This record gives sequence, structure tokens and C-alpha cells, in this order.
Amino acid sequence: MTVAAFQGEPGAYSEQAAFDFFGPRVQPLPRPSFDDVFDDVASARCDFGVVPVENSLGGSIHRNYDLLMRHNLHIVGEVVVRIRWYLYALPGVQLGDITRVMSHWQALAQTEHTLSRLLPQAEREQVYDTAGSVKMLAEERRGDTAAIAGKRASELYGLPILLEGIEDDPTNYTRFLVLSRDPIPSPSPEREGGMTGYKTSIVFATRNEPGSLFKSLAAFALRGVDLTKIESRPLQGSPWEYLFYLDFGGHADDTNCRRALDHLSEFATVLRVLGSYPRATMPQ
Amino acid sequence: MTVAAFQGEPGAYSEQAAFDFFGPRVQPLPRPSFDDVFDDVASARCDFGVVPVENSLGGSIHRNYDLLMRHNLHIVGEVVVRIRWYLYALPGVQLGDITRVMSHWQALAQTEHTLSRLLPQAEREQVYDTAGSVKMLAEERRGDTAAIAGKRASELYGLPILLEGIEDDPTNYTRFLVLSRDPIPSPSPEREGGMTGYKTSIVFATRNEPGSLFKSLAAFALRGVDLTKIESRPLQGSPWEYLFYLDFGGHADDTNCRRALDHLSEFATVLRVLGSYPRATMPQ
Repeated sequence: MTVAAFQGEPGAYSEQAAFDFFGPRVQPLPRPSFDDVFDDVASARCDFGVVPVENSLGGSIHRNYDLLMRHNLHIVGEVVVRIRWYLYALPGVQLGDITRVMSHWQALAQTEHTLSRLLPQAEREQVYDTAGSVKMLAEERRGDTAAIAGKRASELYGLPILLEGIEDDPTNYTRFLVLSRDPIPSPSPEREGGMTGYKTSIVFATRNEPGSLFKSLAAFALRGVDLTKIESRPLQGSPWEYLFYLDFGGHADDTNCRRALDHLSEFATVLRVLGSYPRATMPQ
Repeated sequence: MTVAAFQGEPGAYSEQAAFDFFGPRVQPLPRPSFDDVFDDVASARCDFGVVPVENSLGGSIHRNYDLLMRHNLHIVGEVVVRIRWYLYALPGVQLGDITRVMSHWQALAQTEHTLSRLLPQAEREQVYDTAGSVKMLAEERRGDTAAIAGKRASELYGLPILLEGIEDDPTNYTRFLVLSRDPIPSPSPEREGGMTGYKTSIVFATRNEPGSLFKSLAAFALRGVDLTKIESRPLQGSPWEYLFYLDFGGHADDTNCRRALDHLSEFATVLRVLGSYPRATMPQ
């Protein structure tokens, strides 16, 4: 059976991402931190890891970019999950009874306006996980408290949903990467579609010279390779120099992309392909 | 008297940045959050705000990039502060007595290796501020607890320093921006040095088309304007589209930079100059 580690409690969106990617027969393995997920994949305690790298409202999850660089894992897939938030309370509790709302800080931030309209007086309390906040509420059984999590927390912890879809902005999606010790085999050129529909993630650094980022992007632009994302992170030990994480459309083994990477390698001081993987579709 | 708002308690590095920039006669105004600092400057409750935007190890402080976009303030200066961490305990307390260390999560992260060597058993506790952790310790007076903060917390809260320079990596600098309601006047061309030694920060977005970031950087590269930083943030309401924050060497009123900005404006869907300001020197 395929085992996929994720950060959080059962019912977290990272677990949902594992089901969306692998199907219902995967065995998700809840872990306390992102570091644990990377460690577990690297040391073969599980087959895959599923970690969020970007939310369409909150931006990148930088810790996971740093961990990609620190470990030698391969990205073998991506999955995009629509994020919806639900307000949980004990059976019989009404909105007017609630003086305290707990969840992960990101869920609290993404429901801020809705909460200040519906529960202006309620105190916010940050806890370590969204699904974990429902688990805590089911244990504490406090009638003055609500928790915010995804829909699956309801089945798992047996609490009713008081309000659904309380996120402020409906264009709320999180992109997850699937990590493995081994890369996926390159698609055969005879396969239908060949290498179309792939995406590649790389990390690179260049000498700190005027125009170096422009020259790096030229390697792709001059060959019509489309960049979908760029993220900069500090280069440790060299203040105000950067590592760049780049995603582009295409497979690293495609001739055009291969030439772009060769061109970049002429002046890059660091260059690593993190993986080529089928592009995710946006959920409904 | 000049009043400059900062986030944190007296003794925080943001307060140090205000002293480094304005000199000893500034009156720093401690505020609970970055949002409060921006609000106080915007509503003229104070003259300036001083906020961190980037640490050479931890990377950008993204909340402050988002707040720059949300408010119409001007960047009028930058200052770089060397970050050193000090371990505080009550008088007479020895390393062996300590079972609990508290500080802001960034200070705990930046002293992680040193702490796990010196205090392998001690539990870590995250609090809202570094200087605030020393303030709390001075109030609690617990002999089993240490706190981590900068040097100035010692004078302010009357606690002795048990260990100095406990940061794992000595190349630890934070870059702060100074914010005002009004831009600084453009330097006169007759002034010695003219517009050299200036830096400009902008934010822009383009249509989501292949090669658009490359074209944007070309506006600068083709004129020899040197980029010092690029940061991407999500464009709210448009999943997987981005706002780019760019710093470049030069003044926005310099002819060459002006032309680069005009060129960028031909295809940018958003373009705002956040400020031109004298470049900071690196501290010893």
C-alpha cells in the first residue's frame, strides 16, 4: 500500500491533497512538521510526501522551498486543492453563544472579514492545525468555542458544521507538491501527447553581477519556454544574494527545455532540477 | 521631536534601526503589529514608521510587502542592522538551571544549533517579541527560564546577560525601510554626487503572458540599471498571477531610470514607485 506523509492532523487539506493525487487507497501518514515529512521520505519511512508550496491568497510557504534545497528528493507531481472553511461548534450551540474561535493562523486570516461581521466580539486563538482545532474542541467540549477547518473534520471528529464556506475570498486554492526519493521515468516520445502537459521546477543561483537574473530568464524566453513562477530565497552566508526557484512549462528532457537548462548552466553557480511532473488541473 | 513607530517592545531591533537612522534624538513609538505602524504613519499619529522587510538568513517579511501595496506611504530611507542574540537569565542563574527558553520564533530559529549544544533539554517557548521575552522574564522572575533578545534589553529590563553572540550564523543582517506620508525631495543635480548612491523600490504586475517577466526585466537590463532584489507576491483574486516588488540602483528621477520605468509602464497593468532613497551602508 502507498504511504504518503503530510503535515497536520487527519482531516487537514494536505491529507485531502494526498487523496486527490493518489486516490482513496493511499494511506496518509500525519506528521507534526514539514521537516518530518521530508525526513520520512528521505529515510524511506514512507513512499511519498505531500507538502503545500503556495496558496493563491497567502503566497508561498517558504519553509518548504528551503527544505527542497536541503534534501535530495524529487518532485513527481503537483495537485491543486480548493480551500473552503467551515465553522464547527458542539451540537445545539448557536452563533450568539460563541466568544472564542480557534484555528491555524492562516484559516483565521482567510476568514477574518466574515468572522468580524458574524462574531465581532469573539476572541481568536491560534492553534497548530485546522483539523487539530476541531479535534481539540471535540475533546474540550466547550459551548462557548468554535473551530475552523475543512469539511472532512466533521466525519472524523463527529462535530456538526454550524456555517459553511466562511472564507472571505472564494478564489482560494493551495498548490501541493508530491515528493519521492526517485524521479518519475521520462515519458516515451511515442506516448500520446509526448512531453506536453508537463511542468519542471528548478533552483539556481548566479554570480552577483548586474543583469544576471535577466540573462537567466533569457535562457528560457529566447526559446519560448513559459515561466509559471519565480520565488527568491536568501543564499545562506551571502547577505543580499539569492537562490531562485523557477517553474516552467515543459519537461526537462524535452530538447528545447534541455537547451534552455544547458544555456543557464553556462553561468549558474548552482543549478538543480527538482523534478518534471504532469501539470495539475484546477479543481471546480 | 521626530516620532517613529516600530513593531515590538522597547529594545527590539526595529527600535535600534530607528536610532541608527534618525540618531539618538528620535522618539521611537512601540506598536503591537506591523499594521499599526502603517496605520499610525498614514493617519499622522507619528512622523515615520520603521519596518523590517528582509533578513539575510530568513528572507523577506512578506506581510510588510503586502502592507506597502495596501497603503500609499513612501519609502524615504533604508537601514541595515547586524543581528546578534544574547541569552538572558535572572542574576545567579547558571546554564545548568535552565529548562525553558523563550523568545520570538525567529530568534529561536536563528540560535537553534547553539541552543541544542548548550541546552539540549530546554523546552522552547514562542512569544510575540524578543525584547518582550526579557520583559516577561523580569516580571515572572523564574530561575529555570532564559530569554533571547538583543543587547539593549539588558539596560531596559535590568537583567544580566548570561551568554553573548549565540546566533548560529554571524552573517545575520536585517534590512529595514523608513516610511513617510511624503516622498523625500529629489536631489538637486548640482548637489555633490547628484543621484548616485540612491536606490528605488517599485511594485508592478503585467498581463499573464509568456515572457512578460523577461520583458519587464529587459526595461532595466537594456539600460544597464542594476536590480538588487525581486520578490513575488500573489495578485489577490487571480490565482497563480503575481505582483513583483523590485529594487534597483538609481533614482526614479534620473533620466536612465525614468526611461526604464516609462518602458515598463508600456505593458505593466500595475506600476507604482514606492520610493527613491539613499542606499544604506552595511554595519560593521
